[in-house]
Amino acid sequence: MIHAYAALAPNTPLKPFEYEPGPLGPEDVEIAVQYCGICHSDLSMLHNHWQMSAYPLVAGHEVVGRVAAKGERVAHLAVGQTVGLGWFSRSCRSCEFCNDGDFNLCTTNEQTIVGRHGGFADRVRCHAAWATPLPAGISLESAGPLFCGGITVFNPLVQFDVRPTDRVAVIGIGGLGHMALRFLRAWGCEVTAFSSNAAKADEIRAMGAHHIVDSRDANALAKIAGSLDFILSTVNVPLNWEAYMGTLRPRGRLHVVGAVPEPIGVAAFPMIVGQKQLSGSPLGSPNTTRRMLDFCARHQIAPTVELFPIAKVNEAIAHLEAGKARYRVVLQVAK
Amino acid sequence: MIHAYAALAPNTPLKPFEYEPGPLGPEDVEIAVQYCGICHSDLSMLHNHWQMSAYPLVAGHEVVGRVAAKGERVAHLAVGQTVGLGWFSRSCRSCEFCNDGDFNLCTTNEQTIVGRHGGFADRVRCHAAWATPLPAGISLESAGPLFCGGITVFNPLVQFDVRPTDRVAVIGIGGLGHMALRFLRAWGCEVTAFSSNAAKADEIRAMGAHHIVDSRDANALAKIAGSLDFILSTVNVPLNWEAYMGTLRPRGRLHVVGAVPEPIGVAAFPMIVGQKQLSGSPLGSPNTTRRMLDFCARHQIAPTVELFPIAKVNEAIAHLEAGKARYRVVLQVAK
Repeated sequence: MIHAYAALAPNTPLKPFEYEPGPLGPEDVEIAVQYCGICHSDLSMLHNHWQMSAYPLVAGHEVVGRVAAKGERVAHLAVGQTVGLGWFSRSCRSCEFCNDGDFNLCTTNEQTIVGRHGGFADRVRCHAAWATPLPAGISLESAGPLFCGGITVFNPLVQFDVRPTDRVAVIGIGGLGHMALRFLRAWGCEVTAFSSNAAKADEIRAMGAHHIVDSRDANALAKIAGSLDFILSTVNVPLNWEAYMGTLRPRGRLHVVGAVPEPIGVAAFPMIVGQKQLSGSPLGSPNTTRRMLDFCARHQIAPTVELFPIAKVNEAIAHLEAGKARYRVVLQVAK
Repeated sequence: MIHAYAALAPNTPLKPFEYEPGPLGPEDVEIAVQYCGICHSDLSMLHNHWQMSAYPLVAGHEVVGRVAAKGERVAHLAVGQTVGLGWFSRSCRSCEFCNDGDFNLCTTNEQTIVGRHGGFADRVRCHAAWATPLPAGISLESAGPLFCGGITVFNPLVQFDVRPTDRVAVIGIGGLGHMALRFLRAWGCEVTAFSSNAAKADEIRAMGAHHIVDSRDANALAKIAGSLDFILSTVNVPLNWEAYMGTLRPRGRLHVVGAVPEPIGVAAFPMIVGQKQLSGSPLGSPNTTRRMLDFCARHQIAPTVELFPIAKVNEAIAHLEAGKARYRVVLQVAK
């Protein structure tokens, strides 16, 4: 029996909930959860914002724990080994994308909290390919957010060949953005943070930003026109996309990982003249996740987290929904 | 004295016009024009659509001719040598983009018909770096359009690493699009033409398209959802961008070279999930132009042109403006 916290309907507090997971699949693992981060996607699923929630719904997809059991065909993981689990929990492993190692682009992949139960629980299961071992030197209590928010902002650096000589910027210094600043600083880049919150300035510099530009000041954006190679937008609200495109130098890229609901409108003429690009990307593959973890260990990069015991999951959710998280909320499930 | 055809004001017929070009710059060449293509950009400049025309205006930036004179510092070209000249006529050759060979991205470059006189004339001048020698095996009478329309659609194949194993498509089978089909077929790709003109179907297949999809049929677009690696849009009217983005497979790119005036709106969520990209690019650098010419010679690729003597330049322009060009109009200036 797995002991979890579930929503029984949209917009209701989570309550203790037990379920029987059945026999473990031959390629699957069961993870004894130690920590589980709370992501905005958990809130969207709990509230059925995407019209794909099934109740009872056990959220949680930033899991760190130990392999408690493994299926008979799982040879590369050991019981007791520390692993992490993020948004994806299974891929077909036979399509053209999986065959390239792009398990994250598999069009039939399974998501940890969609139609199945996630990590706000003492146990959670996944296909072994998506249980990524933690290297030495990674703090367990803060590692959970790396498996969703972290890999979301790390993946584009790999996919789009961001270079250490690049001038880069991050829009939105929150759960995702603060990790992006740390990655980009360690990547060797000249790093700008776009932020409208002056109270965060010292923290933002400590995270790695060389420069802070007030994202609500059109003059400030105009002043850095044509200067940036790569902008990573982590927010999910409409922005003055033209102004941000204008801050790109020729060959520059505006990359979005925040699912803003309104279409992103860009003017063709300056994009053509400056050979500019707009792009998006999902979470990374298992291999990219491993590279991220190695990079974190080498550079002592970790998310800044606030811990809540899982018994206080509803308080933790309220804290995040109030915009108070500094910068990522993590549930402690077991010591 | 240079003998040209000029517009003296917007929306007036071109008239014979003479001007004295002054001494030839030490790094410049004077080209004796043999052929000059007519591009939609010539029409935009003649009509002052971009609010940057100066009259008298001598249009023409798809030039083929012989080097008639060269400045004292020009060592790599010989008088009498056949060269081509396109949209750009000079770059600073000292900025970071020029230093990378990206003369086309120089932010202070000079354009052949902007603030100076172009190729609807017996002579035209440019910096020697932008006078590109024609290799053997290129037909002079059809080569002019390669230097603007041709390089515009060839450049993105190089810049964005289109691969011979890719499934690609072209939107708009006109002056630019018909060259794009030929390039992409010779590039080794599986080629789709988006066209709404059933009367062109046989010609479009002969240009290299394996498939023709009716661009006005939403069902036809839905039927090929998720199948294309690269789409090149050559049109300058608003399209159902979402539908085209939907025809891209994961990692796919929608690339625009047509300067549609309205913003291009794309939805963030499918772009993120499928790691898709939207981009634009200008004409290519001199080196990319040389590569294109070599590729044309190797594969016997040439634009399909209709020749008019330069004395009939106004008829030629009317033919293009009426949408009757099949597929590019070229003025014959000298035998």
